[in-house]
Amino acid sequence: MSENGNREQGGVSRRGVLAAGGGLAAAGLALGRTPAAQAAPMSTSADVVVVGAGISGLTTARRLVQAGVGSVLVLEANDRVGGRTENLDAGNGVITEGGGQWVGPGQDRVLALIDELGLETFKTHVEGKSIYLRNGNRQTYEGTIPPLSPDALADWAQLQTRLEQMASTVPAEAPWNAQNAFEWDSTTFGAWLDANSVSAEAKWLLTLGFSVIFAEDPHNTSFLRALHAIGSSGGIEHMMNATGGAQESRIVGGSQLISQRMAEQLGNRVIAGSPVTEISQGSQGVLVKSARAQVQCKRVIVAMAPADAERIRFTPGLPGRRAMLQRKWHNGTENKLAAIYDEPFWRSQGFSGQAMTDLPGAAYVVDNSPPDGSIGILLTFIGTAGYGPGLKWSDAILDDPGARRAAFLDGLAALFGPKAAQPTGCVEKDWLHEPWIEGGVSTRAPGTLTQYRNAAREPVGRIHWAGTETGIMYEGYMDAAVSAGERAAKEVSQLL
Amino acid sequence: MSENGNREQGGVSRRGVLAAGGGLAAAGLALGRTPAAQAAPMSTSADVVVVGAGISGLTTARRLVQAGVGSVLVLEANDRVGGRTENLDAGNGVITEGGGQWVGPGQDRVLALIDELGLETFKTHVEGKSIYLRNGNRQTYEGTIPPLSPDALADWAQLQTRLEQMASTVPAEAPWNAQNAFEWDSTTFGAWLDANSVSAEAKWLLTLGFSVIFAEDPHNTSFLRALHAIGSSGGIEHMMNATGGAQESRIVGGSQLISQRMAEQLGNRVIAGSPVTEISQGSQGVLVKSARAQVQCKRVIVAMAPADAERIRFTPGLPGRRAMLQRKWHNGTENKLAAIYDEPFWRSQGFSGQAMTDLPGAAYVVDNSPPDGSIGILLTFIGTAGYGPGLKWSDAILDDPGARRAAFLDGLAALFGPKAAQPTGCVEKDWLHEPWIEGGVSTRAPGTLTQYRNAAREPVGRIHWAGTETGIMYEGYMDAAVSAGERAAKEVSQLL
Repeated sequence: MSENGNREQGGVSRRGVLAAGGGLAAAGLALGRTPAAQAAPMSTSADVVVVGAGISGLTTARRLVQAGVGSVLVLEANDRVGGRTENLDAGNGVITEGGGQWVGPGQDRVLALIDELGLETFKTHVEGKSIYLRNGNRQTYEGTIPPLSPDALADWAQLQTRLEQMASTVPAEAPWNAQNAFEWDSTTFGAWLDANSVSAEAKWLLTLGFSVIFAEDPHNTSFLRALHAIGSSGGIEHMMNATGGAQESRIVGGSQLISQRMAEQLGNRVIAGSPVTEISQGSQGVLVKSARAQVQCKRVIVAMAPADAERIRFTPGLPGRRAMLQRKWHNGTENKLAAIYDEPFWRSQGFSGQAMTDLPGAAYVVDNSPPDGSIGILLTFIGTAGYGPGLKWSDAILDDPGARRAAFLDGLAALFGPKAAQPTGCVEKDWLHEPWIEGGVSTRAPGTLTQYRNAAREPVGRIHWAGTETGIMYEGYMDAAVSAGERAAKEVSQLL
Repeated sequence: MSENGNREQGGVSRRGVLAAGGGLAAAGLALGRTPAAQAAPMSTSADVVVVGAGISGLTTARRLVQAGVGSVLVLEANDRVGGRTENLDAGNGVITEGGGQWVGPGQDRVLALIDELGLETFKTHVEGKSIYLRNGNRQTYEGTIPPLSPDALADWAQLQTRLEQMASTVPAEAPWNAQNAFEWDSTTFGAWLDANSVSAEAKWLLTLGFSVIFAEDPHNTSFLRALHAIGSSGGIEHMMNATGGAQESRIVGGSQLISQRMAEQLGNRVIAGSPVTEISQGSQGVLVKSARAQVQCKRVIVAMAPADAERIRFTPGLPGRRAMLQRKWHNGTENKLAAIYDEPFWRSQGFSGQAMTDLPGAAYVVDNSPPDGSIGILLTFIGTAGYGPGLKWSDAILDDPGARRAAFLDGLAALFGPKAAQPTGCVEKDWLHEPWIEGGVSTRAPGTLTQYRNAAREPVGRIHWAGTETGIMYEGYMDAAVSAGERAAKEVSQLL
């Protein structure tokens, strides 16, 4: 999609207003400036305030500006933009992504935005043999189907068929309206798998895939939400695969560029390092208080995960369903570890770099090298799914960064030989201890979908909601962050 | 227990140190003083800091002082003490409780503390006919067994027998060690009831009782936690009953007096209006930052619900199990509504004031009049359990205080006649919008007990944990708040 000729038209100026109010720049509040210690927040006004400078919030602001909304401000708690996407320095000008990073076919909104911003995508490296290792039995395979035992393959097929059949009855825009919604929302995906799989191997592999995608053990997740995800994210194989699936492509320069490019173009409309503490609605407007700016505005769009919005004091208090949704929301959390090498040496040995294993520090491994292969990067996930009954892949190493790294390199050596244990460096993104982000992908505790229903995206007076958790298709992916931002911008611009 | 002669010995002075450091009093930081706007927090030091001045935190501080610990400070976010207990003014010097209020046999620790503080208990009013109303069929009964249909009684009996049998296999101190722990923690109590009850009436009544006690629909709650609660709180009948059960007695003057009496005796050791924002551990000690005081101490005891502790920034970051426990913790939430009358007129008509019904605003009603019956008070609960599939008792009225009151009074009129619709006043405690308290009783989302295990009470370096959620018996009740505080005080005083 980088070849379709729109790149030179990228940028806010194409459809909207480029110049931002000079007052904020003069006050030194633009992105990247260090806030003066103890400085009183400046008072200002805007038509719309967006809370959160992740992909969703920045898309919201971009679309509002493009729609001609006079003044838009984005308030971000962190000192960077990107939210749950972040580029990590892998040395020599190369990055490896610490957060969300893949896009795939069907994710039209994020692909269109990438194109509009003049960014390019490239295919995830999949050429060569992948490795499948379980109970000490190491096998290689090509393509997308790992060499499961015949029994496990048969079980996988029946599980997939049944899950996708059930998922087809769950409306993407209103999963709580599925005929069996209450029954499915009363239990966990893990309980269903325990009751319905006949092969330990098939259940293990499905659990591994789910745990990496959702950063949570299936025994925490509402079965209704699991079915909803399957139905609204292209099906099980699409979710799990690179070739033709949701991990098909990456962004040249890293996924955080999407946010950085938007923030650059929004200029001093983006105020970072400024956590929002209060949102007070009156009949005439909304007062948004943050560390660096107090903004009087007509509408506010909160583009955060519901759990993160719980840090804001809302006056008047939020309606019951929304208040409870925020309290009972939780996100799965997993760290990403990358090992960096002078070259992607496994490629010349015929390996794709992908592995699915029961090794404690290298359960799911992928090649995350830059597009030119100038250096080699192997990536894994270590997450709190390791606390659950489904996988035991990280239990001993969850609290010790040194042990995590050692287990990762041990695993890589078992998969790709001793050279893999000698990287030039390792980088890790620790999402468990992010100050402003309560977790990663959007899962749901049982009961919350059916009981709080559309509270994630239903406006509360002058407060509107964005964020990937308010998306309909691909909830939890970057694509839903974009579509939610576009929906929220439209919702609000029609009301101004 | 108010007659056992220990009352005159009540107070901190009996076993410990009464005088508190003069510095804090001189600085105007003692309880009840209004913090100066924008004032910089004072810096001080103490042996132990307790975070939270609910029953558990205050018990912790009291026991530490009694054990001879030199200096103890309690930091409380709210401008009052008592946490999830609060006395509401019902006029004429009478109170009605807005939060936890009942004590019963077996709750030895809170009963001993009540006695030690010179407080008295009195029996919940149960004399007379109670009302049972379902599907428009209003019946009265005496005693503790409502007039269920024979089929429903039989179903209730089999459900109770099976639940209590399963509960007997769940260790109170380590429910995650039950033989079926993972299976039971993977589903909800609601799903189990749906699959195992044969009478809609029995299921409805059990759901009603559970929803009032846990402030949550059973379809949100881990089945393992439900069994753990049944096993560690005296069994189903004990939990549901006044006579001989957990609602047997009340505290003269209201349950908040427990905290107020302790705070009085702790004097200027209690600093209210001072939310803790950061807890930083070093090898030598802990720095606790709050709005009004920064305290360097040897140990800190966080006496808050795990969800509330999520507002504090911990350095270094918390271990994974504890971090995830806090994020995935949620508490049930319900409001209490009280209607106030010149006299408890229902008593002279032969009614106890208790009712169990399917009326939307008066599902569970009790007589909450003061011990001398000088005025009459009828109390009900309206909670977020109304969002669930189990009960529909409050769905239409959850977001409108006026509609809640109207539905409550309509219900009372249907139960006790038109006089009940004409109270002299109504008071409501809105727990959904408390600024510093995320909810009421301690339930658990599926997966959290088995995955995070003892993280609720396992110390993290110099950080220790109290609060009713860390109790073993009667978790969620005032009794566990007391026993947890006593356990935490002992844990810490042995380490100083």
